[in-house]
Amino acid sequence: MAEKVTGDSGRAPRRALVVTVSDRVSVGGRDDASGDHLAERLTEMGFIVERALVPDEAADISKLLQSSVDGRALILTTGGTGLTPRDITPQATKSVLEYEIPGIPELMRAEGARSTPYAYLSRSVAGVLHRCLIINLPGSTRGARESMAALEPILNHALGTLAGPFDHDSPGRTRPSGS
Amino acid sequence: MAEKVTGDSGRAPRRALVVTVSDRVSVGGRDDASGDHLAERLTEMGFIVERALVPDEAADISKLLQSSVDGRALILTTGGTGLTPRDITPQATKSVLEYEIPGIPELMRAEGARSTPYAYLSRSVAGVLHRCLIINLPGSTRGARESMAALEPILNHALGTLAGPFDHDSPGRTRPSGS
Amino acid sequence: MAEKVTGDSGRAPRRALVVTVSDRVSVGGRDDASGDHLAERLTEMGFIVERALVPDEAADISKLLQSSVDGRALILTTGGTGLTPRDITPQATKSVLEYEIPGIPELMRAEGARSTPYAYLSRSVAGVLHRCLIINLPGSTRGARESMAALEPILNHALGTLAGPFDHDSPGRTRPSGS
Repeated sequence: MAEKVTGDSGRAPRRALVVTVSDRVSVGGRDDASGDHLAERLTEMGFIVERALVPDEAADISKLLQSSVDGRALILTTGGTGLTPRDITPQATKSVLEYEIPGIPELMRAEGARSTPYAYLSRSVAGVLHRCLIINLPGSTRGARESMAALEPILNHALGTLAGPFDHDSPGRTRPSGS
Repeated sequence: MAEKVTGDSGRAPRRALVVTVSDRVSVGGRDDASGDHLAERLTEMGFIVERALVPDEAADISKLLQSSVDGRALILTTGGTGLTPRDITPQATKSVLEYEIPGIPELMRAEGARSTPYAYLSRSVAGVLHRCLIINLPGSTRGARESMAALEPILNHALGTLAGPFDHDSPGRTRPSGS
Repeated sequence: MAEKVTGDSGRAPRRALVVTVSDRVSVGGRDDASGDHLAERLTEMGFIVERALVPDEAADISKLLQSSVDGRALILTTGGTGLTPRDITPQATKSVLEYEIPGIPELMRAEGARSTPYAYLSRSVAGVLHRCLIINLPGSTRGARESMAALEPILNHALGTLAGPFDHDSPGRTRPSGS
């Protein structure tokens, strides 16, 4: 299929996955306005977008991320970034990342705080696994919208950098020690 | 006692602990203006406030936090967030948290920087243990005042979220793997 | 030599090291404008400045940092803070730090974002090893300049605090548990 491009191609359409993390959505109990919005925006930006639903279970989230990075440039999650014990998306994401990019959550929180100081309560994480950029966004529609708006100015630059080329690039160096 | 309410009650007065971390205060050598200020503000916000003093020893701080979370909605520490080897409150706090809330220190530093860029040198940590919100504040009177002022707009919302209810809440999920 | 002062002297000139992390510079393939700029600024601030070059190899970077802290107040690195698998300066730095100072990278990113939102993509780390302050700066000339400008208002205060004196200071406490 012509659409099955790898994430490190600069010209072919890039593939992205939008993951909705929610116990309620995954059993059909709630609309997924946040996931819908993220998918729409990414489509408008030229991505080929797929969707996934997963309950708020750390093992399920980690497994989905690990099995989804190959061939994709970007994974956005929505949901599970709040303060309660059921909000485990950040921990599950951290556990699979090769390295974090702490400035991306800082940017989302600082931009979100222009609308509400509660933006500082999001525990979103961002980072890289197998050259795929993974970013947590809040589950609320407003939080997801505002975080996406904060990301848009940096997203293409970040993905372009990740797509290489790199100096002295070699597969054995994709998981550096100490990360 | 009517006042001995649990932290997850929305209506009854919430209990908070103010911990002053200081070698000097704990041997009586210094006034504790920062601790006094935090206790006053929390009392004005409707909390039942208790106080504790602890020297700058990681084991003492960790033990005090662990033994103080049950039945309390909030623990604020003051002191030990600076740059020297004797400033160990952040490390001691991290070692007992189930998960961190990185945006809370970001907010305190960004707000404090309106007054002095040195606010960025505070290594404050915030996070959750047994549904109790624990937040480090600086030891200086000015630093503690400004950090408290930064916290006030988000504190009730954060504690309300932590008090639940949660979807599919269960005790076995309060310490997620990967945190 | 009169210049061989220890980092904890308040009056004598302080020693600093500027480390350029780059595969290309270390084999002579590129000018080192970023390293040059940092060295000039530190000299103007009164530091005795030495220089080092190291390739983008985690083990080389960690080893250089560990063998360079004694007798120096400050180490600035430039390069290797970006998003690619070859950018490993932050991981290599983290692996040797006793404790991080997260507000310093926050400050550099927030200040850099006044010029470009891409500043939020720097994964710079700052922290302390053996009372020496270590700070990662970006490798681009603009990124290094803007990060240095952000640091200047806090640098002397941070180093003054680290130079002590501390309460109850003892060598056994320089690496607290839980850090």
